[in-house]
Amino acid sequence: MTTLRTVAVAGLGLIGGSAARDLARRGVRVLGFDRDASTVAAAVREDVVAAALGPALEGVEEADVLLIALPVLAALALLEAALPRLGSVRLVTDAGSTKRSIVAAAERLGVGPRFVGAHPLAGHHRCGWEASRAGLFAGARVYLCPTRETTGDAVDHASRLWSLLGGVPEVVDAAEHDRRLAWTSHLPQAVATALAGALAARGVGRDELGPGGREMTRLAASSPQLWRDIVLDNADAIAEALGALEDGVRAARLAASAGDAEAILRLFAAGCAWAGEVPASVAAPGGAG
Amino acid sequence: MTTLRTVAVAGLGLIGGSAARDLARRGVRVLGFDRDASTVAAAVREDVVAAALGPALEGVEEADVLLIALPVLAALALLEAALPRLGSVRLVTDAGSTKRSIVAAAERLGVGPRFVGAHPLAGHHRCGWEASRAGLFAGARVYLCPTRETTGDAVDHASRLWSLLGGVPEVVDAAEHDRRLAWTSHLPQAVATALAGALAARGVGRDELGPGGREMTRLAASSPQLWRDIVLDNADAIAEALGALEDGVRAARLAASAGDAEAILRLFAAGCAWAGEVPASVAAPGGAG
Repeated sequence: MTTLRTVAVAGLGLIGGSAARDLARRGVRVLGFDRDASTVAAAVREDVVAAALGPALEGVEEADVLLIALPVLAALALLEAALPRLGSVRLVTDAGSTKRSIVAAAERLGVGPRFVGAHPLAGHHRCGWEASRAGLFAGARVYLCPTRETTGDAVDHASRLWSLLGGVPEVVDAAEHDRRLAWTSHLPQAVATALAGALAARGVGRDELGPGGREMTRLAASSPQLWRDIVLDNADAIAEALGALEDGVRAARLAASAGDAEAILRLFAAGCAWAGEVPASVAAPGGAG
Repeated sequence: MTTLRTVAVAGLGLIGGSAARDLARRGVRVLGFDRDASTVAAAVREDVVAAALGPALEGVEEADVLLIALPVLAALALLEAALPRLGSVRLVTDAGSTKRSIVAAAERLGVGPRFVGAHPLAGHHRCGWEASRAGLFAGARVYLCPTRETTGDAVDHASRLWSLLGGVPEVVDAAEHDRRLAWTSHLPQAVATALAGALAARGVGRDELGPGGREMTRLAASSPQLWRDIVLDNADAIAEALGALEDGVRAARLAASAGDAEAILRLFAAGCAWAGEVPASVAAPGGAG
């Protein structure tokens, strides 16, 4: 793993900060950048980051790998700004929740052969350096999205990097990733937000909820800026998924209004049959009542 | 607490079984009924139930208190069937998620003075005697809904019963309870079910979800029959809440389709501001990504 002697991490939030911690613990030299200078200072003080990079990643030339861990639109801008300094970097990867746009940007900017987009399923409603921790990626699925030009070596390096962090890499086409994640991740987040918004508008306080209601709205505390960017970047697929949910909520409303016992039972039975496919080990306790 | 020497529990599922376990552990004699004879046998074998009651609660005459822990529509039927034998019972209470209909039934059937509807916020997507456990109600809010005729003594008895079980009683009007719970409990459940239904229709397996998506669909495994009855019994309030959610999902879909960054940010910020009102102690880890 000669490519992992020095890794530059741009963005020391939940994802980048956690990756930096794991890398430093494994003896990798970590170069770090964050818009917030006090975050970089904290990371240096905690012996996680060995040296700070400049705002356009000045100093990144020393790194074997660049990991961009910024919100998706900021990641695009940084990739472009850092371009002149990426000559010796052998792998450029990221950690954003959408992959089409950054993969396309890497191709357009000429770093396609060395670029492998990544998305670790290890997000959280808390964010920032304070929320970062070693072990965040343990057992987490990590989608890897090569460009059309990515070399086999670059894919191997990306796979080794994310495996070293404890993740379970799975290579998938970027467009397929975004279509799939619209349903498996972006829709659940949007639903939590919509539910929280409806309760807020009704004047219901979060302390009035039972355990099930609290669970269903916890994700609503996620960063609004982060999710705005994700929705903008995967708008078509997310709109389609939201449309399907809208239809389902309307069907439930109409069944309730009509007092249609059979239709109501059918809706709950369909959800229950699907949810019952899950192994018991992933079902946690707590519920509505 | 002379009223709590002998308590009859009708329905030995998650709620009734858990209540029976806690009562037996505190030295209360528990008489039990369940439609499933093997459940009653198990409860007797485990020294939770001292004696079995008949299908129309034959034997309930010996009890000071009757706790009906059945799905809401079955509870109504049982209350009527048991009516001739309730002469000496000093408190009749229940544990259903809706309260208007059973409170009205108690008044109509002439047990209004002795009836206090109850709803412990301790539900769970698992159900049945196997899921029951001592301590289920520890710290849980328990709504108490008197009839228009309930005596102060009966309210006191109900409050003591649910406090003995570890709950935190709060007296509320039945109609107000149902309106409030449509938002705080029934809507979150319906949303989990609608999300699960949309994912099922799309062919997304539950194993493809990250931690956030799994959390947002866990409640969908709740009993379809139980929830059909709740929706039928609180249809007007639930339809109103579903309508508000539908509007919120539509707004999110339109903002995504239009690529309206400001509108998208506004939706996420509103949900986040509301979710941020919660003390950190009730926010559990895990999230979407």
